[in-house]
Amino acid sequence: MSSVEKIVEQSLLYDFYGELLTEHQRKVYEAALFEDYSLSEIAEEEGISRQGVHDLIRRCDRQLKQYESKLHLVERFTRVRADVAHINKLIENLQDAEPETVAEIRAITERVMEEL
Amino acid sequence: MSSVEKIVEQSLLYDFYGELLTEHQRKVYEAALFEDYSLSEIAEEEGISRQGVHDLIRRCDRQLKQYESKLHLVERFTRVRADVAHINKLIENLQDAEPETVAEIRAITERVMEEL
Repeated sequence: MSSVEKIVEQSLLYDFYGELLTEHQRKVYEAALFEDYSLSEIAEEEGISRQGVHDLIRRCDRQLKQYESKLHLVERFTRVRADVAHINKLIENLQDAEPETVAEIRAITERVMEEL
Repeated sequence: MSSVEKIVEQSLLYDFYGELLTEHQRKVYEAALFEDYSLSEIAEEEGISRQGVHDLIRRCDRQLKQYESKLHLVERFTRVRADVAHINKLIENLQDAEPETVAEIRAITERVMEEL
């Protein structure tokens, strides 16, 4: 897995399960992964060792993956998003025949994408 | 909340978050809620007190609700299901104009319902 793929995966897992981590874990994890602080900077800010920060992040990654292995939310939502995008594509064909219905369906699919 | 509404709510929460309970909790919770064993029967089977079974079930209920208050999966999935059902209803209007596209969309919405 490339480092870009890895950060995308971590972001998705964090979006879904981040709320299940403790506040301290969330703070450190966000600083390291999404706000680009160095481990040393976070260590100083949190008053723990650099190694402690490193371990905490690895522990978070493990926990997030564990939640996914039990609940499969990223997998399910990713599939549903692809399906909804497919519906959006298909209704383009119907634009001329039934513009109002198509507009209504499009409003719903947009809302679904936001909800997911 | 009526007792029917309560069991529906418990089932939904359990569907989504049951995997996050321990195996022991799952066994007792399922026996009591979905297999209709009495607390006394479960107590005997598990070698714990009737009160212990009662407390375990209440603790499970509390945990399941806590997961929902953090992840809102039941809420999100319920909304998306309603939206997809609405799309299904709307494409009925397009049946005569574009039967093939409608069939394709219907196949997708059916799959989405299974995935949710």
